Amino acid sequence: MTPVPLARIMVEPLVRAALLEDLGRAGDLTTDAIVPAGLAARAALVARERGIVAGLDLAKLAFELIDPNIAMQVECEDGAMAAPGGVIARVSGPARGILTAERTALNFLGHLSGIASATASIVAAVRGTKAKIVCTRKTTPGLRAVEKYAVRAGGGASHRFGLDDAILIKDNHIAIAGGIAQALRRARAAAGHLVKIEVEVDNLDQLKEALGEGGDAVLLDNMSFDRLAKAVAIVDGRAMTEASGRVTPESAPALAATGVDLISIGWLTHSAAVLDIGLDFDA
Amino acid sequence: MTPVPLARIMVEPLVRAALLEDLGRAGDLTTDAIVPAGLAARAALVARERGIVAGLDLAKLAFELIDPNIAMQVECEDGAMAAPGGVIARVSGPARGILTAERTALNFLGHLSGIASATASIVAAVRGTKAKIVCTRKTTPGLRAVEKYAVRAGGGASHRFGLDDAILIKDNHIAIAGGIAQALRRARAAAGHLVKIEVEVDNLDQLKEALGEGGDAVLLDNMSFDRLAKAVAIVDGRAMTEASGRVTPESAPALAATGVDLISIGWLTHSAAVLDIGLDFDA
Amino acid sequence: MTPVPLARIMVEPLVRAALLEDLGRAGDLTTDAIVPAGLAARAALVARERGIVAGLDLAKLAFELIDPNIAMQVECEDGAMAAPGGVIARVSGPARGILTAERTALNFLGHLSGIASATASIVAAVRGTKAKIVCTRKTTPGLRAVEKYAVRAGGGASHRFGLDDAILIKDNHIAIAGGIAQALRRARAAAGHLVKIEVEVDNLDQLKEALGEGGDAVLLDNMSFDRLAKAVAIVDGRAMTEASGRVTPESAPALAATGVDLISIGWLTHSAAVLDIGLDFDA
Amino acid sequence: MTPVPLARIMVEPLVRAALLEDLGRAGDLTTDAIVPAGLAARAALVARERGIVAGLDLAKLAFELIDPNIAMQVECEDGAMAAPGGVIARVSGPARGILTAERTALNFLGHLSGIASATASIVAAVRGTKAKIVCTRKTTPGLRAVEKYAVRAGGGASHRFGLDDAILIKDNHIAIAGGIAQALRRARAAAGHLVKIEVEVDNLDQLKEALGEGGDAVLLDNMSFDRLAKAVAIVDGRAMTEASGRVTPESAPALAATGVDLISIGWLTHSAAVLDIGLDFDA
Amino acid sequence: MTPVPLARIMVEPLVRAALLEDLGRAGDLTTDAIVPAGLAARAALVARERGIVAGLDLAKLAFELIDPNIAMQVECEDGAMAAPGGVIARVSGPARGILTAERTALNFLGHLSGIASATASIVAAVRGTKAKIVCTRKTTPGLRAVEKYAVRAGGGASHRFGLDDAILIKDNHIAIAGGIAQALRRARAAAGHLVKIEVEVDNLDQLKEALGEGGDAVLLDNMSFDRLAKAVAIVDGRAMTEASGRVTPESAPALAATGVDLISIGWLTHSAAVLDIGLDFDA
Amino acid sequence: MTPVPLARIMVEPLVRAALLEDLGRAGDLTTDAIVPAGLAARAALVARERGIVAGLDLAKLAFELIDPNIAMQVECEDGAMAAPGGVIARVSGPARGILTAERTALNFLGHLSGIASATASIVAAVRGTKAKIVCTRKTTPGLRAVEKYAVRAGGGASHRFGLDDAILIKDNHIAIAGGIAQALRRARAAAGHLVKIEVEVDNLDQLKEALGEGGDAVLLDNMSFDRLAKAVAIVDGRAMTEASGRVTPESAPALAATGVDLISIGWLTHSAAVLDIGLDFDA
Repeated sequence: MTPVPLARIMVEPLVRAALLEDLGRAGDLTTDAIVPAGLAARAALVARERGIVAGLDLAKLAFELIDPNIAMQVECEDGAMAAPGGVIARVSGPARGILTAERTALNFLGHLSGIASATASIVAAVRGTKAKIVCTRKTTPGLRAVEKYAVRAGGGASHRFGLDDAILIKDNHIAIAGGIAQALRRARAAAGHLVKIEVEVDNLDQLKEALGEGGDAVLLDNMSFDRLAKAVAIVDGRAMTEASGRVTPESAPALAATGVDLISIGWLTHSAAVLDIGLDFDA
Repeated sequence: MTPVPLARIMVEPLVRAALLEDLGRAGDLTTDAIVPAGLAARAALVARERGIVAGLDLAKLAFELIDPNIAMQVECEDGAMAAPGGVIARVSGPARGILTAERTALNFLGHLSGIASATASIVAAVRGTKAKIVCTRKTTPGLRAVEKYAVRAGGGASHRFGLDDAILIKDNHIAIAGGIAQALRRARAAAGHLVKIEVEVDNLDQLKEALGEGGDAVLLDNMSFDRLAKAVAIVDGRAMTEASGRVTPESAPALAATGVDLISIGWLTHSAAVLDIGLDFDA
Repeated sequence: MTPVPLARIMVEPLVRAALLEDLGRAGDLTTDAIVPAGLAARAALVARERGIVAGLDLAKLAFELIDPNIAMQVECEDGAMAAPGGVIARVSGPARGILTAERTALNFLGHLSGIASATASIVAAVRGTKAKIVCTRKTTPGLRAVEKYAVRAGGGASHRFGLDDAILIKDNHIAIAGGIAQALRRARAAAGHLVKIEVEVDNLDQLKEALGEGGDAVLLDNMSFDRLAKAVAIVDGRAMTEASGRVTPESAPALAATGVDLISIGWLTHSAAVLDIGLDFDA
Repeated sequence: MTPVPLARIMVEPLVRAALLEDLGRAGDLTTDAIVPAGLAARAALVARERGIVAGLDLAKLAFELIDPNIAMQVECEDGAMAAPGGVIARVSGPARGILTAERTALNFLGHLSGIASATASIVAAVRGTKAKIVCTRKTTPGLRAVEKYAVRAGGGASHRFGLDDAILIKDNHIAIAGGIAQALRRARAAAGHLVKIEVEVDNLDQLKEALGEGGDAVLLDNMSFDRLAKAVAIVDGRAMTEASGRVTPESAPALAATGVDLISIGWLTHSAAVLDIGLDFDA
Repeated sequence: MTPVPLARIMVEPLVRAALLEDLGRAGDLTTDAIVPAGLAARAALVARERGIVAGLDLAKLAFELIDPNIAMQVECEDGAMAAPGGVIARVSGPARGILTAERTALNFLGHLSGIASATASIVAAVRGTKAKIVCTRKTTPGLRAVEKYAVRAGGGASHRFGLDDAILIKDNHIAIAGGIAQALRRARAAAGHLVKIEVEVDNLDQLKEALGEGGDAVLLDNMSFDRLAKAVAIVDGRAMTEASGRVTPESAPALAATGVDLISIGWLTHSAAVLDIGLDFDA
Repeated sequence: MTPVPLARIMVEPLVRAALLEDLGRAGDLTTDAIVPAGLAARAALVARERGIVAGLDLAKLAFELIDPNIAMQVECEDGAMAAPGGVIARVSGPARGILTAERTALNFLGHLSGIASATASIVAAVRGTKAKIVCTRKTTPGLRAVEKYAVRAGGGASHRFGLDDAILIKDNHIAIAGGIAQALRRARAAAGHLVKIEVEVDNLDQLKEALGEGGDAVLLDNMSFDRLAKAVAIVDGRAMTEASGRVTPESAPALAATGVDLISIGWLTHSAAVLDIGLDFDA
């Protein structure tokens, strides 16, 4: 699924910082010593395993920011499936710049494609159900916007982007407020008219209390599949229902079969392995 | 293994950026709506699974930067093993600030502890051999310094920190130079007297060529265990020997048994799952 | 109305930038030339006209960042009414620092108090109705978070904080989509489950179309009071109703009387005059 | 009056910050959901009321930074008068980018044009006298350079840009120094040879004392028109004379008639209402 | 001569950047490896040669930013003369931090003290004349504010701080304008009332033209001592007179004897050698 | 000697900061007042004295960042010798921009060319010996990367770039460790496999101790030429030998004749005078 690209103004600072982190104070000692200044080269970004690509814009920027004479030609779009050995993009231009930017480009591309691929594996597992796969705020520090983008590339949907774009009442808030009803009332009183409110419930009594106060969504925490199905029946469309946990492609279908609207998964962004992508120079 | 802490000046910008990423333009809507201003609370950072802790300074900074009245008392040091249910640190102070900083603190702590734990699992697997476990430049963009720190916390050692602190001659450099000898000679001519040179070799002929030119270290790429052992014998102490690849705790002992000095592993920094750590409020 | 303060981490960069903008490359030439280094002073921040105070944290930071030996004692909280001649806060410490930080402190305090006061004047005018006063994205570049905070200090509520925390479908979006229904459907398909959707309607037919598609809120643009009242009746609680325009304290009651839920006003943030506040040294 | 444009290097950081403030972590949800990627559009920036335009470079940058394929064609220059309904500039390119950048472009343009227009209204009121209209350091935090530019676009002139480019001795400095003469002597001793010195005087005795010490300019504070005229006569060209206060187009002619060289007005930068400018898509 | 210190807010970013430049991505490898964590130490900043000290605040900040437990006790103030072997300041606290911050602290202190010392050597050479020694805009990129501060510490005075705080008309401006009179008239028309105007003249005819237009100061470029004395006589107090060039302590007295008001010297800031200052650990 | 250029991404922030430092809040008052907007000009960067050029990329960036319509045509490369009166580069485009960027461009070019020229003078003096000239960490704060680049342009080589890319054990480290052997052992235990270790020795006993522990390089501090020669003989190729001090072109040959591998010189970066380069407009 091809997501709407993030504006360059949003991602360029990340790419600059990553390049500078790698260049340090002296640049690419190896390449500068060995590769002649004028040498041109062609190379391909190649998938070493099957997965969903995400982050091509960042990889492209990495090459261009090192040398504007490097051109990167995309062969598949973010959100597309790459097969093992498949060419994702072609790069041509000064050999020095290609080698210098290579690692930064691949670090972004591998990380984001890893997230997209993990997301897609769960999305595929729940196809045919109404369950949407959503990520959480358990993201790598500094990379939230691009990691959420990668989830979209994998076919996932968005949860909160931060503390300030929706209200999510968790167990500690409820304990402090003295109950779900009190917490929801305080939240509603403070919330702007474009702010939705979700509340975490641990059992069916809490669920009914939440529904009584009109929450927009309920997070059904740590419930068995049976309990979840019962909860969904109780809600009966009056709120969005969300289940969370370390879901796998194997466990996802049963979870989705409970009828929940949303399955939120932290590991998509905090623990997905990179997709193995390499750079092969043309012989 | 307790590593020397990074100076606060090096990590504070990361923590500030992560907090601002989460706070957005309006701060913590939920907590601000529900939790009274004056309320104090106590909570514990608790490991949900066994692993090596890393990143306590960053977690502490996250709480302090949100509210200097929050005190975090560390119960174990970076590099120490936490058992499931074990308390890593205690936090006390204004409830609002604790809740607002919680996710950022945990995101750093979980990510870095995950890397430390993965490293430690390999380090443990090769105990008794001379092999050191080292990470690579395949790090998460923006987090290289702290991820390498986490590897040290897990008992691993350092490879290059960037393109500019050592020379690592790879296959593409060799191809461009027209051979290992030429590449090494160009590198030596350009390198400062405090810069070490490592060269990647694919076979034993290349290895001998590299030794002939006096490389400080050789990266033995994609070799079988037998071939590795042979390579180590050929090198015979004239250079450091490094093997690389997606090593697991299971495969590590056999790899170490080849006698290589170093085992470099990219996934420690790019694909280690987080260590599950939570924040529990005192009842 | 005392709003929850913004975290220091969110406002300190603004105050630093403002101080540096004023200090330039040489600092306060006048004060440095005339005021002895050791001289201590006491002064008061005094309202020159009636209004609602906002921005005390930023003023305090301005003094402290210039000299941590300056103490600012707040006499009234953000959101409180100051009478002409009323002391808002007292400042004591090195005279040089007080004079150097004075203008920056007052620029923040006057600007934000001006917004709070303007908001409060409209809020007062609609007291007794259900209408909430909300500001818009028509804010001064760079100051959105603090200007929205000032609106809260004046008793107003929040609209969107940016392009990314809610969907607001305007006339151009509708024209491009080919109608309200199509626009709403596209929005719903793309929106995360915690994202609300508001749509601008120009007439009652559009309003009905919007309600048919289940928008969370409708922005009733450029309608007469009669038409607004009719629109509110048609909506009948199925969505939030918002009227917008350059509302004054005089025109607000009649507008609120139409029964709309929200009155959004751009000028609160882009055109409110400062509240006149001065710094008087103790004799 | 067309002022010399500020270098792009000076204003680009402001525009970037304003765009990022609006885009947040997810960009323009509404436009991304509704507007097709390939759609091109044409639109016009249209004045909704009469006024002086300022800030076209910043508006242009806002569009270009969101998408370099957007072209903005200026129809009138900064400093020119726009009539109600008059087209200020035309924008063409990808519809998505135009919609996303619209608010930021208009926020700059409205704010700066408001300042230019306010300035021009006073400048017009004193035409035929020698009085120059100048702004002060009472500017919106972060925007001083561009607000002072807007004053120039409105025909106004410059006062100090910050604490460090001239000396302005105010009442508190005088009190601390123990008199105008002492303050002026200290200032002169410290001032570089390219630094002018102005001193605030409250009455004619202070004025004579200031003249005796050779100040470059005198700020005649809070004086009646009669007193001002007398002061101007006493000065008799030996220093620049400045009157200050909340001057309106109505009160300005009488103030200028006193013969003062300069009328400084804080509200031009801190309280001028925006000039209403909108973006109309071509049908 | 003790200059007024620059606000910490102005210099802290420079010190942070310098420390991070030295720490890189891994910090102080040597110290971390060798020096025990708990070890305390005492050391002294000692002048290795005679000179004027400047930059103590920056050195202090360097130590404190690395470790707030390091205390630096100043033994002499900026602007004071240090004798060879003289203790400038004492440092005590964690040995690791002292060693890590040492080079950065000394780099600032040596550089700024070098400038102060060079300035003082010229100031001493012209003592008894009315000539003031001033520096120029030929400063080290990024360090203008602190280098100008160091000149003040050495007894020198200020010229322009940048392009925007005074007008200095040079030969190219004159050529473009078509003559000194035209250039001065254009400058006067554009200049704010607190902006002084200086003009460079190459010969006595140009000088007379400049005086006829009322410039505030004249830069007498490349004139012999005789010609300079003649120029000073012609000016006769109607403007400040400035001579420039690569003046040495030996040539300065004769230059000052011409009666010029100002001697501007670029090399004070761009070519002064550092003052040799070292850090000696207490035995 | 033409060094490999630093990536633009590494130097652009320095040039931007330097330009903004000069432009301040109002830009180039003089040029804006006097030079017509449309005027084009041609000018040449001309060496006023003999020396080695370095920093052309930064000068070019200064012009381009002020106005992309300015073209700078390089006439000689970094590392080339410029003769007095020789044209280094030609600049053409809008006269305003050329005048505004002139000082910043020259400040970089003069500073870096001064360092390159100083380096080259020593390199020439030791030609025919094996001694390499290296700079130190005694660099101007903020400019280390470009100053080290300038040393390379002058034919010098690299020492450490910071605290983190090699280990250099100095007297204080040795004292704390309790001897050279202990210090070296601790260093070796902590050092990564690509980190070299150098140790400072004060006498021949220490030297032998260092060799016994296998340091990669020894810094022979404060030794007479005789002692140095003896030390070199003792080392006999087992380690790199480095002598340091304030070496001049006159003293360098004798120092090099001792047979040391490296001569490190702090003043190349901290005290080299600028190379005098000016900008001449075409008549």
